[in-house]
Amino acid sequence: MTHFVDRLLEAVERKRSHVVLGLDPDYPLLPPEVRHKHEALDYEDDLEMRAAAYREFIFRLLCDLTDEAVAVKPQLAFYEALGSRGYALYEEVVATASSLGYLVIADAKRGDIGSSAEAYAAAHLDVAGADAITVNPWFGTDGLEPFLARARTQGKGLFVLVKTSNPSSTEIQDEVLSSGRRVYEHVAGLLSGWAVGTEGTRGYASVGAVVGATHPAQAAELRAALPGIPFLIPGYGAQGASAADLAHAFDGAGTGSVVNSSRAILYAYRSGPGDWAAAAKAEAAAMRAALWRAAGRG
Amino acid sequence: MTHFVDRLLEAVERKRSHVVLGLDPDYPLLPPEVRHKHEALDYEDDLEMRAAAYREFIFRLLCDLTDEAVAVKPQLAFYEALGSRGYALYEEVVATASSLGYLVIADAKRGDIGSSAEAYAAAHLDVAGADAITVNPWFGTDGLEPFLARARTQGKGLFVLVKTSNPSSTEIQDEVLSSGRRVYEHVAGLLSGWAVGTEGTRGYASVGAVVGATHPAQAAELRAALPGIPFLIPGYGAQGASAADLAHAFDGAGTGSVVNSSRAILYAYRSGPGDWAAAAKAEAAAMRAALWRAAGRG
Repeated sequence: MTHFVDRLLEAVERKRSHVVLGLDPDYPLLPPEVRHKHEALDYEDDLEMRAAAYREFIFRLLCDLTDEAVAVKPQLAFYEALGSRGYALYEEVVATASSLGYLVIADAKRGDIGSSAEAYAAAHLDVAGADAITVNPWFGTDGLEPFLARARTQGKGLFVLVKTSNPSSTEIQDEVLSSGRRVYEHVAGLLSGWAVGTEGTRGYASVGAVVGATHPAQAAELRAALPGIPFLIPGYGAQGASAADLAHAFDGAGTGSVVNSSRAILYAYRSGPGDWAAAAKAEAAAMRAALWRAAGRG
Repeated sequence: MTHFVDRLLEAVERKRSHVVLGLDPDYPLLPPEVRHKHEALDYEDDLEMRAAAYREFIFRLLCDLTDEAVAVKPQLAFYEALGSRGYALYEEVVATASSLGYLVIADAKRGDIGSSAEAYAAAHLDVAGADAITVNPWFGTDGLEPFLARARTQGKGLFVLVKTSNPSSTEIQDEVLSSGRRVYEHVAGLLSGWAVGTEGTRGYASVGAVVGATHPAQAAELRAALPGIPFLIPGYGAQGASAADLAHAFDGAGTGSVVNSSRAILYAYRSGPGDWAAAAKAEAAAMRAALWRAAGRG
C-alpha cells in the first residue's frame, strides 16, 4: 500500500504543479456550444440532457489538463442536483479521472456517526473509488473513524474542514474558547491526533486540512501549527485569493499544500475569445506557474 | 403555501404520533427471507440486487406503518453506499413515501457554501422532492441561506445539527466559549435567528434543531432555551434512549418534537419470532404509545 499523501506529493513533484481542478459543473455557465448541441438532441428529460452536457464538458477537460493538475475535486452537490443521473455521472468522472492518472478528491463534506459514517466512507472511497474525501469535523472522532481506518490501512486520504473560505465561517469557526483558542484552532489540534498512523514517507500524513485561501494570515498560522499535515486550499481565483496570498501556505521545501480552482478554470472562456477548452488549459497553466513561484520553486 | 412545520405538527395531532421512521437499509440486517429471495434472482450486479432487496423491504414498511409514523427519514449514506442505483432508490423512496402521506426528511447532513449549498438545497428539496433536510451548521449563515430561503417561501423545512447523539459529540459541540456558553448553545442561539421568517400558525418555525435523545438533560435545557423551534430527536431505541428520557423534550402542550427510530423498528424481527413487517409495526406502535404518554398526552 502507498499512502495517499505520498501519491499526492509525488504527483506534485512530477508535474511541478500544486493545482487541483475543481469539477463543479453548473449548467448556465457551460460553454454555449456545448449547451446548444445537447439541447438539440433527443433525451428522456432535462436532467438526462444536462448530465450528457456535463459529461462532454468534463471529459474534454480531463483529457486536456493532465499536465496541469495533480488531482481533480468533483463537488458532489452539482452532481446530486441532477438526481441519480448526476450521481451516475459522478461515478463515471471518478473512474475516468483515475484512468487518466489524476488523484480524485471527492468533495462531499460528509459527516455522520456510527454505521452512517461507515456507509459514507464505503460509498465514496470503496464503491465510487475516490482516493480521498472532504469531511466535516462537527461529530468528533467517532464520526471520522471509518475514514481514518481507510487512511491507515487502504491508502485513502481525507481532508477535514478546519477553516472554510466563506465570509460567515467566522460565526462558529472563529469563536474564542475559554482556553483562548479559537474553535478552528481546537479542531486543528484534534486533527493532529487523527493523523497519527497515516504518515507516509515524505514527512506528511494522509489526514489533511481544508484551509480557505481567503484567510491568508490564518493559513500561515495553521501551516506553522500543523507540520506534517497536508492542506487542501479552496478559494483561489473566483473566490478572490491570489498566488501571493498563498506563499506562506507552503512549507520550507515549497510543498505540503495543494490549491483548488473550479470556476476560474472551468469557465475561463467567459473572459475572452477562443476555444473553451484551450482557455481552461491556459488558465490552469497560468495558475500552476504562479503557485510554483509562490511556493519558492521556480 | 403551508409551512413545513404546520404540516408536521398537524400530522402529529391527526395520527397521535411523534414517531419518525428512519429508513437506514443495511444489507446484513435485512430479514433473511428478503435477502434470500433476491440473491436467487438474476441481477446485473450485487449493487442492483441489494437495491432491489432494499426497495421491497422499505416499500412494505411504508405501506404498513402509515398509522404509526408522521414522517420518514431516509439516511442518505446507506443509499449512496449502493452508488447511483442506491441514489435512484432514494428518489423512489421519497416519492413513494410522499404519495403515502408521510412527510419526508432527507437525512443528508449537508453543509457547504455559495453555489454548492444552493445545489444541495436544489438536489434534495427540489429535485428529489423531500419536505425537509438535515443540515450541518459548521459554515454559518451563508451556507444555510439556500435552505432558509426554501423554508421561508416554499414550505420546506430544515433541521440544524445542534447536539448530536454520538459519544464524541462532546469534542467540539461541548467546548466552552469565553462567553461561558458551550459551542452547541452558541449554535442554538444562531438558530433562533435563522428561524425568523419561517414561523407557521402553530407557534413553531420550519427551522428546527437536531438534538440527540442520548443527552436528556441538554435536550431539556435546549427545549427551554428554544421556544418555537421544533426538535428532531435521534438516538431513541437502538442508541439507548427511552421515552422517559424524552419527557422534557416536549413543550407544555405535549408537542414541538418528533423522535426518530431506525434500527429498533426496521429490524425488530431480530428480537422475536413472526413476520418481520408485523414486528416492525408492533415496535413502532409501542414507541408511538410510549412517546404519547411521555409527552403527557395519553
